[in-house]
Amino acid sequence: MASSLPKGNAIIGQSGGPTAVINQSLVGAVLALRELKGVKKIIGMRHGVTGLVADQLVDLTRTPTKHLEAIARTPSAALGSSRDKPDAAYCTKIVESCRKHNVRYFFYVGGNDSSDTCRIVNELANHSGYEMRCFHIPKTVDNDLVLSDHTPGFPSAARFQAMAFESDSLDNASLPGVKINIVMGRHAGFLTAAAALARGEGKDRDRNGPHLVYLPEVPFDPNRFLADVEKVYARLGRCQVAVSEGIQSADGKAIITTIAQNLDRDAHGNVQLSGVGALGDALADHVRKHVKGAGGKSIRVRADTFGYLQRCWPDPSPIDAKEARGVAKFAVRMAAKGDSSGSVAIIREKGKAYKASFKAIELSDVAAKTRHMPPEFIAGHSDVSDAFIRYCKPLVGKLPAAARL
Amino acid sequence: MASSLPKGNAIIGQSGGPTAVINQSLVGAVLALRELKGVKKIIGMRHGVTGLVADQLVDLTRTPTKHLEAIARTPSAALGSSRDKPDAAYCTKIVESCRKHNVRYFFYVGGNDSSDTCRIVNELANHSGYEMRCFHIPKTVDNDLVLSDHTPGFPSAARFQAMAFESDSLDNASLPGVKINIVMGRHAGFLTAAAALARGEGKDRDRNGPHLVYLPEVPFDPNRFLADVEKVYARLGRCQVAVSEGIQSADGKAIITTIAQNLDRDAHGNVQLSGVGALGDALADHVRKHVKGAGGKSIRVRADTFGYLQRCWPDPSPIDAKEARGVAKFAVRMAAKGDSSGSVAIIREKGKAYKASFKAIELSDVAAKTRHMPPEFIAGHSDVSDAFIRYCKPLVGKLPAAARL
Repeated sequence: MASSLPKGNAIIGQSGGPTAVINQSLVGAVLALRELKGVKKIIGMRHGVTGLVADQLVDLTRTPTKHLEAIARTPSAALGSSRDKPDAAYCTKIVESCRKHNVRYFFYVGGNDSSDTCRIVNELANHSGYEMRCFHIPKTVDNDLVLSDHTPGFPSAARFQAMAFESDSLDNASLPGVKINIVMGRHAGFLTAAAALARGEGKDRDRNGPHLVYLPEVPFDPNRFLADVEKVYARLGRCQVAVSEGIQSADGKAIITTIAQNLDRDAHGNVQLSGVGALGDALADHVRKHVKGAGGKSIRVRADTFGYLQRCWPDPSPIDAKEARGVAKFAVRMAAKGDSSGSVAIIREKGKAYKASFKAIELSDVAAKTRHMPPEFIAGHSDVSDAFIRYCKPLVGKLPAAARL
Repeated sequence: MASSLPKGNAIIGQSGGPTAVINQSLVGAVLALRELKGVKKIIGMRHGVTGLVADQLVDLTRTPTKHLEAIARTPSAALGSSRDKPDAAYCTKIVESCRKHNVRYFFYVGGNDSSDTCRIVNELANHSGYEMRCFHIPKTVDNDLVLSDHTPGFPSAARFQAMAFESDSLDNASLPGVKINIVMGRHAGFLTAAAALARGEGKDRDRNGPHLVYLPEVPFDPNRFLADVEKVYARLGRCQVAVSEGIQSADGKAIITTIAQNLDRDAHGNVQLSGVGALGDALADHVRKHVKGAGGKSIRVRADTFGYLQRCWPDPSPIDAKEARGVAKFAVRMAAKGDSSGSVAIIREKGKAYKASFKAIELSDVAAKTRHMPPEFIAGHSDVSDAFIRYCKPLVGKLPAAARL
C-alpha cells in the first residue's frame, strides 16, 4: 500500500477551545509524520484554517524533538486555535491553499465542527481531482463526539472538576453556605457530571459535595432548584451545587437567557456562556432571595464560574496525555496504511482494569454530530448515576485524598 | 521556666478564609502540644470561637497521628472556620468558656482579626485573674500581616495565581482577545501581584501575560485602564489583565461600587467581592464598549473571577506547607518557654538561597493591622517591580515550564 502514497507536504492545525493535552496530539502527529515516507515538509497552520488561508504557516519539519516534547507538556494550542466554522466557499480556499503548498496530508485537531471541516475539505479535494488525505484528530473537553468512549481533552478537564469541587466543598464545609459552581459544556453535561467524582468513595460520600448536579440534558426548573437547595441545606447546613453553563428550561430556552440580564452574544449570535459570571450570579441571587436559614435568617450564598482554567489547567490526566498523543499517531498510521480520510475513536475494552484502543471511523460518521449524556449516566433530575462514576473515574488519574476530622 | 507552666487543657481554633495549608498549622500545633508538659487534653473549636462559646468542641488528644497527617495535607479548615470578629463582650464569653473547660493554652490560627481576638482574650483573662497563655498562629492568603516577610497561606495562593495566569495566557494566545482575571485581596495587592510570576524569565517575558496588573494600592482610573488595554492590544493583538477585587478610585471608592450593579453586601455591610462575577463582567463590558480592533471591529473580551479555588487548590507550595507547620510548632515552643502570649513572624534571612526563621512578636504589634504592597514592589500604575518578583518567586515552588513555538 505504502507505494501508492502521494508525495508532498503534510499540514496540521488545531481548532476550537484549547485543552491541557491538545499539544500532545500536535507533537504526536509531527513526530509520526517524520517517519512517513512521501512526506517532505511538515507545516503548522497558525490559528487553524484561519492561518492556512492567510498563509500564516510555520515549518515544523526540523523543530528539535526536545522542544516539541516541551510543547507537548504545555497546555493550550501551541499553533494557535480558531473559532471559524468554514462553509463550502471557505473550504474551497482551504483546498486552494493546500494545492499551492503541495499539501498531500491534511490533519486537523478539534471537535465536531473540525471533523466537519475535514469532511468538506476532503470532498472538495476529491471533487476537484486534487489528491489529498484528510484526517480528523479528536479533541474536546465537552466529550461530545459520537462513537468514542470519550474524547481527548475531557479526562484532564474532568480531573480539574474533581479537584476543584473537592477542594471547594472543603472550603464550603469550613465556612458553610450555599455554593454554586458553573461548569463548561453548552450542550453536553459530561464535564459538569465529572464534579461528582469529588465525593470520593468513603462512608461520608453522601455528605460530601457536590450535593446537586444540573445537566443540560435535564430540564431545569428554577423553583424545583430552590426546593432541592432548601432540602440539602436543611440536612447539612450547607449545599454545594454543580451547574452546567448550558442548563435549559423544559421548552429548550437557555436558563441564562431567562434568568440573567446584560447578556453578551458571540460572533455566531450565541449567548456567551463562558468568560462571564452572569448565570452563577443570577442563580445565587435567586437562592439568596428565596432560601432562608433557621429563624428566617439570610444565608451565605456564593457563586464561582470556573471559566477558562477548566480547559487549560497544567495538571493533565496521565491517561489523557497518552491518549491525545495516541489518537494523533493513529491518524498518521491510517495515512501510512493508505486510508484517504477518517477520524479516530477511542474504544474502551471490557475488563476490570481500564484499557482502551483506537479505531478508524468515517469523517461523515462523526462530523457535526453531538453526543449527549446517555440516560444511564443520569440519576433523577439533579444527580449522576453510579454508572457514570464507574465510567469517568478511571480517566482522571489519581486524585488528592481529602481527610476530614 | 517549664516548672511555672500552668496545668490544664489546650484549645486550638481556625478562623477567617481557609487556605491550602491551614491544616498544617493545626496539626503542627496538636503534635507539639502532645509533648508539652502540663497539657492534659487538646481540644479543637468547631468553627473557631463560634464553636467555643457554643460548646461545639472536638477532642484531639488521641486522634491518630496518621489521620492528623492526612488532614495536614488536606486544604481548608478541618475544624471549620468562622467570620466572627469578637468584641470585648464576646471575648468575655470566650474566657468564660475557657475557664469552664480548664483551658490554660489558647491557640488561634488566623489573620489580623484573629490576632486581635487573641489580644482581647489575653487582656480579659489577665484582668479577671484567670491564668491562660494566648498565642496567635499567622495565616492569610492576603499576605497582609505586618512584621512578617510573608504569611502562611500566601505562597500556595500565589502559586495558584502563577499557574492560573500562565495557563490562561497560553489559552488567550490560542484564541486571542482581552482577558480579565479578578484576584482575591480586598486591601492588599500581593496575591494579584503574584500573577506576574506567570511571565517566566525567558526572552519573551514582555510578550507573556499578565500584560497589566491593577492593585488596590494604586488608584484605578477606568479611562486610563482602557488606554492601557488598547496599547497592549495594538502591540500584541491580545491582552491579559490581572485585577485585584479591591481596586479603588483615587477618592477611595471601591471600583465595584462605581462600575457594577446588583451588589450584595455581607453581614458586616461590606460589598461582597468574592463569590460574585460582577466586577469582572463590568470591566469586560467597559472594554467591549470602548476598545475596538482593526477597522473598528468588535474584539473578543472575557472575564474570569478566580473565586474560592484560589485559596483551597490542592497543590500547595512545599515551602508554605513546611512554614505553616513551623509557625504553629514555634508558637507551642513559645508556650513551653513560658511566654504568656504572642504571635509568630516569618523573617527571611539575607543570602542568595531562600531561608527563613521564626520570631516571637507581641500580639499588640500585629493585631488588627494591615500590611500593604510597599512602594518598591509596585512599578508605575499597572505593573509590579522586579523586586517583587525576586521576593515572591522563591515562595511558590517549582512551576510547570511552558514552551512556545
